Amino acid sequence: MDRRRIVALSGGVGGAKLALGLSRVLAASELTVIANTADDFEHLGLYIAPDLDTVMYTLAGINNAAQGWGLADESWQCMAALERLGGDSWFRLGDRDIATHLLRSQLLAQGDSLTGVTARLCRALGVEHRLLPMCDAKVDTWVMTDQGELPFQHYFVREQCRPVASGFRFAGIEQARISTAVQQAIDDMDALVVCPSNPFVSVAPILAVPGMRQALLASGKPRIVVSPIIGGQAVKGPAAKMLAELSLPVNALAVASHYRDFASHFVLDSADTCYQSAIEALGLQVLVCNTLMQTLDDRITLASRVLSQVGQD
Amino acid sequence: MDRRRIVALSGGVGGAKLALGLSRVLAASELTVIANTADDFEHLGLYIAPDLDTVMYTLAGINNAAQGWGLADESWQCMAALERLGGDSWFRLGDRDIATHLLRSQLLAQGDSLTGVTARLCRALGVEHRLLPMCDAKVDTWVMTDQGELPFQHYFVREQCRPVASGFRFAGIEQARISTAVQQAIDDMDALVVCPSNPFVSVAPILAVPGMRQALLASGKPRIVVSPIIGGQAVKGPAAKMLAELSLPVNALAVASHYRDFASHFVLDSADTCYQSAIEALGLQVLVCNTLMQTLDDRITLASRVLSQVGQD
Repeated sequence: MDRRRIVALSGGVGGAKLALGLSRVLAASELTVIANTADDFEHLGLYIAPDLDTVMYTLAGINNAAQGWGLADESWQCMAALERLGGDSWFRLGDRDIATHLLRSQLLAQGDSLTGVTARLCRALGVEHRLLPMCDAKVDTWVMTDQGELPFQHYFVREQCRPVASGFRFAGIEQARISTAVQQAIDDMDALVVCPSNPFVSVAPILAVPGMRQALLASGKPRIVVSPIIGGQAVKGPAAKMLAELSLPVNALAVASHYRDFASHFVLDSADTCYQSAIEALGLQVLVCNTLMQTLDDRITLASRVLSQVGQD
Repeated sequence: MDRRRIVALSGGVGGAKLALGLSRVLAASELTVIANTADDFEHLGLYIAPDLDTVMYTLAGINNAAQGWGLADESWQCMAALERLGGDSWFRLGDRDIATHLLRSQLLAQGDSLTGVTARLCRALGVEHRLLPMCDAKVDTWVMTDQGELPFQHYFVREQCRPVASGFRFAGIEQARISTAVQQAIDDMDALVVCPSNPFVSVAPILAVPGMRQALLASGKPRIVVSPIIGGQAVKGPAAKMLAELSLPVNALAVASHYRDFASHFVLDSADTCYQSAIEALGLQVLVCNTLMQTLDDRITLASRVLSQVGQD
């Protein structure tokens, strides 16, 4: 295939790793990453888009890889001063990161769309591949827990995922619309890659944008899901804990089952070959390979393997 | 006099110096500083109160004395990142300073008054003397110039006072009210000190709050103006340039004339004794002393000299 147009769906860290790998294999015109924005929230008066920023910083090569979020070589003077003043400091914002939030908040307040602001920020940071928010409307993930319903970042950051989750709600999703840019990417795509992101709170909100799931299915193009569960564990984040709390088996088969009506292909880690036949029995084509991305080479290798599925039906 | 209750009116740097001197001579219960807020503005979505913060940081002992504004030991990572992103960086906000603006903006958005927010910030920073904004309403100084009417910070910071000023306007001042806290301070005061701040853009807006000038006059207490002009020059800021552009003589006599219907006392620098009799002829009592405050001792000495006028009528 001369030119492959790939759409990738991504949450934060795990998704961003594969998005980076894809960006090293695909030309700028060949890749569109659509990021979850349902965990965006307003904090200290700033509009903060954690997944969008994680992908943006990762593609720009300025992310803090060790920490998993935020910028490399970050400083924390503002947070220290805010703590001294008695302000909210449970959500850690680095000094340089704050610039992103200040500018985005200002541009949104001026009436720019999140899609437009993201394009501007990416351009300033030298990100050449296309990064799009899943929609321009404000959608808020709420987590139903044993401590009541919690806004996502309170559950995720403040409570460090300790509450027992029983369900999720994407408030405002009914008002969301597929943007022109997202529609264009779907219309043009040769395959969809669902990055190894949390199925419940990262990928589900993207697919819940009215018309999104249907448009991706209607494309008739390969929809390749990369398992975020390896050997019964999530590489990062609460995906495994959520599976258990939702009374689902904590393994790649449960993830494949979750996507059975949506995916055409499933990328299974070499550690999980025991589930291959069961996943194939769900009607999915299975690719077995190493999916653990520790190095940049791992990211690029996995991206290449995933793309090898495109056009092989 | 056992206990002296002093109200001081202050703009930024020059006023803050004398406010600091007063705070070293007076007990916490004896001093209320009322700061100009007509140069407050919204920038990058943040509510910024330059004069209030200069006084607050100075009283807290954390101001950048060399620079004249902002915090000591400040870092500038956020501004550097904002510049990289192509955001507005003409108004320099330090990383730690931004914490003040974030928290204040958040509290104001939650419905707190500027008076309440200022009290909270001062408490957190260990400022024991009372600091009050001139009012809780949003007032905006506009400078009429040869380049058109400019918002104050655009004139002051972005254009570095280069445009020729012909007048000033305090938009929104009609809606301003004397706050309960300011009224209480005026009711209780034994004397008013007008710090060596710009008469046109720092002190004038405070006196323009409806009822303020009248209440201070009606108190019948000494109203002591400390000259911001020494030897025909302003120690800092555009006061001298403004006098010239308004076709007024650039000297302490012109300042005294400006306050002739308001002040009872005028503190004249030792360099300006040539104006003493002319100022006395305006009906003002004149105190001659060194008014240039280079060291902390200078600030304390001047404060003591100014206070020596209280109760000597």
